[in-house]
Amino acid sequence: MADEEAKKEESTKEKEEHTIFVGTKPPMSYVLAIVTEFKKEDTSKVTIKARGRAISRAVDAAEIARNRFVTDTEVKDIKIDTESMTNDDGDTHNVSSIEITLAIKK
Amino acid sequence: MADEEAKKEESTKEKEEHTIFVGTKPPMSYVLAIVTEFKKEDTSKVTIKARGRAISRAVDAAEIARNRFVTDTEVKDIKIDTESMTNDDGDTHNVSSIEITLAIKK
Repeated sequence: MADEEAKKEESTKEKEEHTIFVGTKPPMSYVLAIVTEFKKEDTSKVTIKARGRAISRAVDAAEIARNRFVTDTEVKDIKIDTESMTNDDGDTHNVSSIEITLAIKK
Repeated sequence: MADEEAKKEESTKEKEEHTIFVGTKPPMSYVLAIVTEFKKEDTSKVTIKARGRAISRAVDAAEIARNRFVTDTEVKDIKIDTESMTNDDGDTHNVSSIEITLAIKK
């Protein structure tokens, strides 16, 4: 049981390791993060996640990385979704999100 | 030959008719445009296009339309790309673009 949980945790950790969360920094910060992630051993794909106005920046980072730095990768999958967020005052509002997966070309 | 060209023009026109270009207006303007487009006869899919910072707004509009107004549709395809744009001074810069296709669920 403990083993299974440890395994699950490890696999979650592994997954998270290949995910870049895009926020308010300049796009090149995230490009660097993507490139660094692909440089790690056993990385065949990296997922770039963003919410709200950072979505444009996530697309910029993915495109710059793919066209100029990790040119052996391609856009494998793009998903969009809506997330409900509750702020400190307890107000709920919806925000759009995006998940872009870059993967090494086969 | 003339017939063929006329046909080609018609098909291009038809395609353009089902495309919404997202710019700087509030998201609901584009939601309305998407819903109106789906109300037209023979519309089984609508493509939402945006460039640069309008990309976030395009995702918002697609998500609001899909979740609240045209709930019989789904995200069929999403493409991202980089476009070279030349301004009036002759300077060229790259800008990211997105194309989101919503289609009636089968």
